[in-house]
Amino acid sequence: MQPVSVTKPPVTAITLGVRDVAASRRFYADGLGWRVLWENPGEIVFFQSAAGQMLALWNVKSMPHEYGDVAHPAPGTPAIPISLGRNVDRREEVDREIERALAAGATLVKAAQKQEWGGYSGCFADPDGYRWDIVFNPGLRVDPDGTLHLAAVDG
Amino acid sequence: MQPVSVTKPPVTAITLGVRDVAASRRFYADGLGWRVLWENPGEIVFFQSAAGQMLALWNVKSMPHEYGDVAHPAPGTPAIPISLGRNVDRREEVDREIERALAAGATLVKAAQKQEWGGYSGCFADPDGYRWDIVFNPGLRVDPDGTLHLAAVDG
Repeated sequence: MQPVSVTKPPVTAITLGVRDVAASRRFYADGLGWRVLWENPGEIVFFQSAAGQMLALWNVKSMPHEYGDVAHPAPGTPAIPISLGRNVDRREEVDREIERALAAGATLVKAAQKQEWGGYSGCFADPDGYRWDIVFNPGLRVDPDGTLHLAAVDG
Repeated sequence: MQPVSVTKPPVTAITLGVRDVAASRRFYADGLGWRVLWENPGEIVFFQSAAGQMLALWNVKSMPHEYGDVAHPAPGTPAIPISLGRNVDRREEVDREIERALAAGATLVKAAQKQEWGGYSGCFADPDGYRWDIVFNPGLRVDPDGTLHLAAVDG
């Protein structure tokens, strides 16, 4: 793989539409310990999600102006078909991260378990139902410059 | 801000549920020039999206097993309330990136324009309607180690 720029990665922002920015801020900043990069209270809050990249939680009511007609995340409706992932180095870290999220108010979607593809992972939902995958993948290797290598794992 | 690890960023994966993995692969790999990291044809394809981070396009039919009941992206329905972003250094690059995406089959959501918050951006949708924001933000600064600084811009 060609190295990916640390300062100019292909994806520099991930924006999620949320119903209650203050509640989302509490979950990510107070609950999960993320550090706020910049915010406009009640409207939008930014965190750093990778080198050169930010995660924005934006009032979903403000999104149509830039993104057209958008679905409104709501409990009980089918989840939005995306997930954010956090890969960890050991199985036990999967369990620990999920426990921390549940303590912060997340909902368990799938308890951590050995997966058919050979890894170990579990899934929780944030206050708007956005899925987070916590994954131990023995087939993932990361170079010191952040370049990834993925290989199939014997299940 | 504390530096964010290049090899272990807080977000290591972004997964989007797509209707036709081969069509999505054509859009991102052939159309936009992204390099495939690993794939299981028809099921899932991975790209590198930042240092230590991957973007996965996964057959949406396979998602419920891990993520519970998920919405099915479909043209004509309201868009999923998320966007992926690509920040660039100059206004002209915004126009150029959007032209390239449209040539690859993207749909224009919002033509590039000066925004109220002081930047210049436009928005297109990929084959499943996922929004991409192409942004020139004069208030964004990135250190050599990938640490971000965001400030309000005078509009």
